[in-house]
Amino acid sequence: MSRTWNFAAGPAAIPEAVLRQAQGELLEWRDTRASVMEISHRGKAFMALAAEIETDLRALAGIPAHYKVLFLQGGATLQFAMLAMNLAAPGQTADYLLSGHWSEKAAREAAPYVQVRSVADARADGYTAIPDPARWTCSDDAAYLHYTPNETIHGLEFAQVPQPPAAVPLVADFSSSILSQPLDVARFGLIYAGAQKNIGPAGLTLVIVREDLLARATRPLPGILRYAEHAAQGSMLNTPNTFGWYLAGLTFKWIAAQGGLPAMAARNAHKAALLYAAIDGSGGYYRNPVQPAFRSRMNVPFFLHDARLDEVFLQESAATGLLALKGHRALGGMRASLYNAMEPAGVAALVAFMADFRQRHG
Amino acid sequence: MSRTWNFAAGPAAIPEAVLRQAQGELLEWRDTRASVMEISHRGKAFMALAAEIETDLRALAGIPAHYKVLFLQGGATLQFAMLAMNLAAPGQTADYLLSGHWSEKAAREAAPYVQVRSVADARADGYTAIPDPARWTCSDDAAYLHYTPNETIHGLEFAQVPQPPAAVPLVADFSSSILSQPLDVARFGLIYAGAQKNIGPAGLTLVIVREDLLARATRPLPGILRYAEHAAQGSMLNTPNTFGWYLAGLTFKWIAAQGGLPAMAARNAHKAALLYAAIDGSGGYYRNPVQPAFRSRMNVPFFLHDARLDEVFLQESAATGLLALKGHRALGGMRASLYNAMEPAGVAALVAFMADFRQRHG
Repeated sequence: MSRTWNFAAGPAAIPEAVLRQAQGELLEWRDTRASVMEISHRGKAFMALAAEIETDLRALAGIPAHYKVLFLQGGATLQFAMLAMNLAAPGQTADYLLSGHWSEKAAREAAPYVQVRSVADARADGYTAIPDPARWTCSDDAAYLHYTPNETIHGLEFAQVPQPPAAVPLVADFSSSILSQPLDVARFGLIYAGAQKNIGPAGLTLVIVREDLLARATRPLPGILRYAEHAAQGSMLNTPNTFGWYLAGLTFKWIAAQGGLPAMAARNAHKAALLYAAIDGSGGYYRNPVQPAFRSRMNVPFFLHDARLDEVFLQESAATGLLALKGHRALGGMRASLYNAMEPAGVAALVAFMADFRQRHG
Repeated sequence: MSRTWNFAAGPAAIPEAVLRQAQGELLEWRDTRASVMEISHRGKAFMALAAEIETDLRALAGIPAHYKVLFLQGGATLQFAMLAMNLAAPGQTADYLLSGHWSEKAAREAAPYVQVRSVADARADGYTAIPDPARWTCSDDAAYLHYTPNETIHGLEFAQVPQPPAAVPLVADFSSSILSQPLDVARFGLIYAGAQKNIGPAGLTLVIVREDLLARATRPLPGILRYAEHAAQGSMLNTPNTFGWYLAGLTFKWIAAQGGLPAMAARNAHKAALLYAAIDGSGGYYRNPVQPAFRSRMNVPFFLHDARLDEVFLQESAATGLLALKGHRALGGMRASLYNAMEPAGVAALVAFMADFRQRHG
């Protein structure tokens, strides 16, 4: 057996160069005479690493100086609640763009802390399109406007960054598309992302928050649930996930070495185009229901014309070295996730297999 | 350079055998053709691992069937708040035994959710002794009694498990002494522990909770902050820290291979005895202020008779291969943490160095 193409939706493939470096230095990191997992987060060596990682990420994503960068725990799911606690006063309203499973969950988890208002809902269209912004019902006094740029289950992606009313900060769950293309941080109040798709291993959450929003939290909250506290302590309010943080740092350097976000964007667009072309060109043998303008570059759900072939498709693809293509249980069918670490050659191998499978089982 | 004795308080040393196994299989784990970090937590391979780890831990710690075992994120600090949210009704009172920095922090972080009552406070004695249980003022109607079995900063440890009033569940932050000796889980309502001392890397939190307490949470809470939800979902309510969970599993197997908790207890008692004897036998050159009955087996703070020697002690000890002996900034001086992974030979080396240092600088 050997490593092969891994289309997992998250936890997902990590660049092999990153894993090899981590493997090489797993028992002794730099001159610490210990694993990076075994040293104090507050010691000189790790503090220097944390500063280096922040500098690298700021350069990579063009993060303005008046934004704080936090490395937290708990995944995007804890952020669903935490952002509501921190950005909304008790009883205040927040606007949510509902585009699929994850934005709906974000709204549900925020509900104990904020009055959730749906300003648009893709459900009516079966999650095949982002509702037309002309019909969104955003309010001027919302605590924030929340959206999910990419829905990993429905394979639906916003082509444009939404424009909220002037005084309303835009909040986005970038878990599945962070660092996959250039992003204009200044348009956002708060960006958050679980690491396990484009950044590193599960168990680390990236939060990028505009400084002025840190003062918003007025309800009684423990320090661990306050952005302002995490920011004041440089993400070391408590012991952070140091190994995940370190791996994120290696991944940022890997992305920079590939040419940064513009190069990632080109590579990701190419990969997605390859796979959607194979689906659309299969004469209905394979099918993706999402309208082309809203198709995700990161997660491509697709269905065989006959669901009775699903099991054999999964068996044969795995045997060929194409892993984790099973669709989310909510949708069935297949799903190929094409995050940064997936190489174009992997997508080419998938496309070749799909053509071959169709010929043999057509 | 090479690996050496690491006395860090947490993140702390991990057994070398565990790190070597993780290193060997970092790119390909079992037959998954991927790193354990790169596979779905809900896939067969990881689900089987999670079940295996729970079985191993239940056997190791003798966890009764009516207790749930959870692997969460956010560290003990998130538990400080979460246990209050879940175990207390709004406005209810909870009793806290204040024995040092960590129990005080636990009380502060719980305060937004529960009326905190101090039932005893070691501060009056300068944190040199656990207050006499005969003087504790526990109440029959407290939501729970909280204590910190081992205080990592003050080096203070409860020799006995506290006995709360009949209907009051005992809640304990075992972050720094979990699995260091046998423990009678049935005496507790809820046990929690950050992993980064005796279990594995930072970023993973172990919670062991009696099933009947899961129904206690009545206030509106998002799923991510409800124990009942985590229990219902087998700790996979959201994407868990899979790599940390895996390393915890390797550590549990390592502990079992050493002879389990009785063997750990004997080894830890031996290590602590060695170091305290060196301190007490130094004629006042080294000093530990804690009363012998309450001295921690895990964290040994000690002070040189002349603080002007601290810097040279730290430099020379590090040069000798004795790492991370600097005391917590709140206390100054030195601190040696002797968690499970610290071998007796490491403590012997420290004791030998201390004698030599005293001779040279005496």
